Amino acid sequence: MNYITWIIIGIVGGVISIGTAIYLYFWVHKQEPGTPLAQEVASWIQDGAQAYLKRLYTALGLLAVIIGFVIFIIFSINLENISTLGLQLHPQKGLLTAAAFIFGALCSALAGYMGMRVAVQANVRTATAAQKDLGTAFKLSFYAGSVLGLAMVGLAVIGMSVIFLITRDAEYVLGFSFGASTLALLAKAGGGIYTKTADIAADLVGKVEIGIPEDDPRNPAVVADNVGDNVGDVAGMGADIFDSYVASAVAVMLLGASLGLRGAEHFQYTVLPLILCTLGTFASLLGIQFVRVKEGQKPGPALNRGTVITCIIYAIMLVVLTVFGKVNIGVLWAAITGLVAGVIIGFTSDYFTNDAYKPVQETSRVSTSGSAITIITGFSYGLISIVPSVIGIALATLISYHLAEINGISGIYGIGISAVGMLSISGMIVSADAYGPIVDNARGIAEMAGMGEEVIERADILDSAGNTAKAITKGFSISAAALTVLALFAAYSEVVKAAGIPITISLQSPIVVAGVLLGSMTPPLFSALTMLSVTKNAFEMIEEIRRQFREQPGILAGTHKPDYARCVSLAAHGALSSLALPAFLAVGLPLLVGFILGPDALGGFLGGSIFTGVIFALLMSNAGGLWDNAKKYIETGKFGGPGSEAHKAAVVGDTVGDPFKDTAGPSLNTLITVMSLVSSLFAPIIAAFHLIK
Amino acid sequence: MNYITWIIIGIVGGVISIGTAIYLYFWVHKQEPGTPLAQEVASWIQDGAQAYLKRLYTALGLLAVIIGFVIFIIFSINLENISTLGLQLHPQKGLLTAAAFIFGALCSALAGYMGMRVAVQANVRTATAAQKDLGTAFKLSFYAGSVLGLAMVGLAVIGMSVIFLITRDAEYVLGFSFGASTLALLAKAGGGIYTKTADIAADLVGKVEIGIPEDDPRNPAVVADNVGDNVGDVAGMGADIFDSYVASAVAVMLLGASLGLRGAEHFQYTVLPLILCTLGTFASLLGIQFVRVKEGQKPGPALNRGTVITCIIYAIMLVVLTVFGKVNIGVLWAAITGLVAGVIIGFTSDYFTNDAYKPVQETSRVSTSGSAITIITGFSYGLISIVPSVIGIALATLISYHLAEINGISGIYGIGISAVGMLSISGMIVSADAYGPIVDNARGIAEMAGMGEEVIERADILDSAGNTAKAITKGFSISAAALTVLALFAAYSEVVKAAGIPITISLQSPIVVAGVLLGSMTPPLFSALTMLSVTKNAFEMIEEIRRQFREQPGILAGTHKPDYARCVSLAAHGALSSLALPAFLAVGLPLLVGFILGPDALGGFLGGSIFTGVIFALLMSNAGGLWDNAKKYIETGKFGGPGSEAHKAAVVGDTVGDPFKDTAGPSLNTLITVMSLVSSLFAPIIAAFHLIK
Repeated sequence: MNYITWIIIGIVGGVISIGTAIYLYFWVHKQEPGTPLAQEVASWIQDGAQAYLKRLYTALGLLAVIIGFVIFIIFSINLENISTLGLQLHPQKGLLTAAAFIFGALCSALAGYMGMRVAVQANVRTATAAQKDLGTAFKLSFYAGSVLGLAMVGLAVIGMSVIFLITRDAEYVLGFSFGASTLALLAKAGGGIYTKTADIAADLVGKVEIGIPEDDPRNPAVVADNVGDNVGDVAGMGADIFDSYVASAVAVMLLGASLGLRGAEHFQYTVLPLILCTLGTFASLLGIQFVRVKEGQKPGPALNRGTVITCIIYAIMLVVLTVFGKVNIGVLWAAITGLVAGVIIGFTSDYFTNDAYKPVQETSRVSTSGSAITIITGFSYGLISIVPSVIGIALATLISYHLAEINGISGIYGIGISAVGMLSISGMIVSADAYGPIVDNARGIAEMAGMGEEVIERADILDSAGNTAKAITKGFSISAAALTVLALFAAYSEVVKAAGIPITISLQSPIVVAGVLLGSMTPPLFSALTMLSVTKNAFEMIEEIRRQFREQPGILAGTHKPDYARCVSLAAHGALSSLALPAFLAVGLPLLVGFILGPDALGGFLGGSIFTGVIFALLMSNAGGLWDNAKKYIETGKFGGPGSEAHKAAVVGDTVGDPFKDTAGPSLNTLITVMSLVSSLFAPIIAAFHLIK
Repeated sequence: MNYITWIIIGIVGGVISIGTAIYLYFWVHKQEPGTPLAQEVASWIQDGAQAYLKRLYTALGLLAVIIGFVIFIIFSINLENISTLGLQLHPQKGLLTAAAFIFGALCSALAGYMGMRVAVQANVRTATAAQKDLGTAFKLSFYAGSVLGLAMVGLAVIGMSVIFLITRDAEYVLGFSFGASTLALLAKAGGGIYTKTADIAADLVGKVEIGIPEDDPRNPAVVADNVGDNVGDVAGMGADIFDSYVASAVAVMLLGASLGLRGAEHFQYTVLPLILCTLGTFASLLGIQFVRVKEGQKPGPALNRGTVITCIIYAIMLVVLTVFGKVNIGVLWAAITGLVAGVIIGFTSDYFTNDAYKPVQETSRVSTSGSAITIITGFSYGLISIVPSVIGIALATLISYHLAEINGISGIYGIGISAVGMLSISGMIVSADAYGPIVDNARGIAEMAGMGEEVIERADILDSAGNTAKAITKGFSISAAALTVLALFAAYSEVVKAAGIPITISLQSPIVVAGVLLGSMTPPLFSALTMLSVTKNAFEMIEEIRRQFREQPGILAGTHKPDYARCVSLAAHGALSSLALPAFLAVGLPLLVGFILGPDALGGFLGGSIFTGVIFALLMSNAGGLWDNAKKYIETGKFGGPGSEAHKAAVVGDTVGDPFKDTAGPSLNTLITVMSLVSSLFAPIIAAFHLIK
């Protein structure tokens, strides 16, 4: 089949995906919105989320325009033969690159916004549906999650396809990806800071100091906390997976373009990742239909069933593509390697965060000796949890490389394909993941609006299924991101080579070692900056909550409505003002290293950041999830149950884990993606700079 | 000068150093041993330490013999032309390598044992001297610390010189270094597990549950806690720096031997690190004389003065050597780069752990909001503390490389020389460092033997000076270890090349990337295993302490002596039985990677382990030191002072930091050294294996 046909199929697939998302959005919107009180509570959350996103997108929009302008200027300079011919301009290239960048940022923002928009409507409707029965509530919340999943893959496939159709050059798609990732990074980090600032402050004053329950409407920070779930988990995560998804496809497009093939074959290998993404979109659309819960069934297995069925459908499609599309069988094997590795890694990371296994149980048990032991034990298991995923990533790398090579295609291309294989089913993965914060919020609304014990119990069941899904998809997304950045890393080498500079990223060269050292310190530094923002902002919000309780005793008595808006505004202001330094680290530092120390050192820098980035992402996500579930395990009555010394210790662990798993950990994926993308995008310019120097 | 003359000067320097150590040992021994009660308390600690070391060295001795035997067998096989000529033996090589290995293990054990031996005598004598005045107590404890420092460098210089004099081959010195490091690793890890098991258990039951002061003789774990200070801090640390010291010299000897020079020049570059170590030994002997405190002076600046003066003397000696010994000036610059970098990195890591600066103060301040915030904040500053050291290491690498190259010698050799330059003054560094646990123990004995408030106050002053010195030397030793392993890493490449295999440790090769991934997960895994041993053993000891209090109420009333020996034995058994897996990781895993994935992957493995090893070592040491000092800062009356909520939160931070800074963190240096040494030692065999395959 002609590659243009494929691209058009991709665009059609994207349109179908977005169409389904829009249909589901209106379906959710049509459902029973609940009692006036529930609607009022929901409207507070909606208004807070809306207000934050408006401020966030205004700031990021400005930033995108500035970066876009810089890109326009720099990419308008014709670098070929600059030393002999002098300064020549080709403004069309600058304009197209800048436009692709801004288009990417826009799509990423749109995916996040749509997800958030449906989430704040679905939460109250889920709570209302839970008054009837579990199955209806589950269906509603999962379909709401699917809006994000389907919109995301639809936007991504359309965006990449359109740009490639217009330019026929993978480098512009790289600009698109860079835009998407930069926005994703800041949305994710900002959302992560926002949500944990509110969460920690609300818990420390409400639950610990005053002793009122979680989500109690008397707590001035309770609305900010619920807003945080939406802006952090839904909007942030939507942007986050959008970015890995696009980046993996772009990496393979660049690798495909650099294979040195000609004509139809050149385009086949360049366009192939788009084809795989399109197939994955269709597989997700089908797989989503299988996520159903009958009366009395548990929702957790339904979500996992959806994931497994999507994988199977996708694998069948791949086989069909290989046989009828005359695609090299090495591609099939590499994609399936990625898919299998992703699922296996996802399920093994479940071991470290599921209370059915030793890590959570042991951490709960030692909590009887106080919070210090809880922290040490959970942290240690978090360190061990790195091992299976890292071995899995290493194996996936070696196997996909080998399977591609023995079938006569570039092994590096095979590694890229394995990342795309993993991420192709993102539509399903994100749907299952976005479901989590929706039911979490539904529980909050049920509590705040006094909807009764039965509703809260049902919401708890839905919530616990969400947590299991989350644990699996987190491992999945970190390993997918790792393979993606490894592919991007290879793409970076190719781009530098294409610019006429021989590149050797050898650890036997001191400049590369210096680059690796600098790169490896960046993810820890980034984590520290975001976490310190959380503690600093939480500290301020704690003072504010205490002040409200002190100055207005009617709040605690329940006769006076707290000033929710002030806490919402504090969290938003704190989060946004904390983003400048992380943004510089992600975009500025790689450029500095590249221009000062050269392309080899920048290669080392990327390598170092990937290795520690993956390690810290796994450590922080898994340790955080483990502490969270250890606390919940004790709350089921183990080791003294709620209120016991063990429970107090576990609450400390959970609070430490909050910024680990929801602020620092998940941003690291995106950080290393952005650093890889900015390096690849600017590689020709850095190479030219060092050639002239 | 002839190189044999230099080696003989080295041996003479070593003998002088050991002679001085022995003289000081007897001088310490002659001092007033104190009241009968104090002597009895001290004898409990002595007996406990002796018993543990006996068990430790028995186990390690057995292990050394087994590894030595394996080395004998493997190195007796003649690998040259094995594929064409069949199996040929040269048992002399096997015997010499095994002997060098066992000799290294012996010297390392001896240095640790001597240090511990003088420490358990000096602690009670320091406490007794503190009854008179501060100056005498300081002199006594510092000279006792010098016994370890001087014995260590003396043994190292003699050991390396004798082996080289006999064999004229740096590869046998590598065997010596591997023996020293393997023993150091297990002594350090075992001691670290022992000391923190006892410390955490004693604190959690004594201070937190029962509310009796630290070092209260009614606490059944108090003797184990004090024994731990000796076996962990003194014996473990002596073995630890011994190992970096030898390893850096060996790395440079190997690099010097591989420069391809002939005759006198070949030997000059091979022997040069020994010469630098000898000069450093003389500089330390002189520098130690300047560490004196007059009445009313603070002891902290005296220790730092000693370090700075030693550096200056050493630098002058280097200049003299360069001018009169006709040594390439590039060597001088590289050595001075290392020296300066070591001191600067040491002082900057002080910033993160000294209560005069923001990190400790801010962590103390946020402790008013509970222990979770204490942990998050301290951990975040620990992450940031990685940055200056890593930048310093990267700069030292680049600068020493460059300075060597422009003076016409190998830049990689220059990097090695900078590590040797840093470590040459170890005699002084270890003296200042070993002083710390001695005064810490003196304080414990003063408390347990009821020697009065004034003595405890003076001991506290001495102790706080020890902590400052410790912070500086820790940063110093981690950066020195980092440069050492970078040099070893380069030596590994040379050894593989010399075995006839071209090696490229390029991050563009998937097998290298897989190696890096596996290597980078090893330090976190090692940390997790040792820390889980601490919590597991502490949990058991907590049960034992509670049992003693429960079954014998006379203990708390002060009428019945607790069963100290049982706690001592529990700690010893727990520590020793936890060493098997860490030992396998250090020695077995690199060999597995090398034999299965090949020399390139093993190179990547070493690189990965170095990068994350350095990062985790800095994080854990600095975060641990920071929490410790935040607690002490609050104890000076800040933020509510002792007993306040902030203090309780800070105690949790301190307890979490204990295994960070004293178990996992300091072992990581040695772990990466052992892995580098075992790889270099077995490199020819691994290379031959892959050539045959």
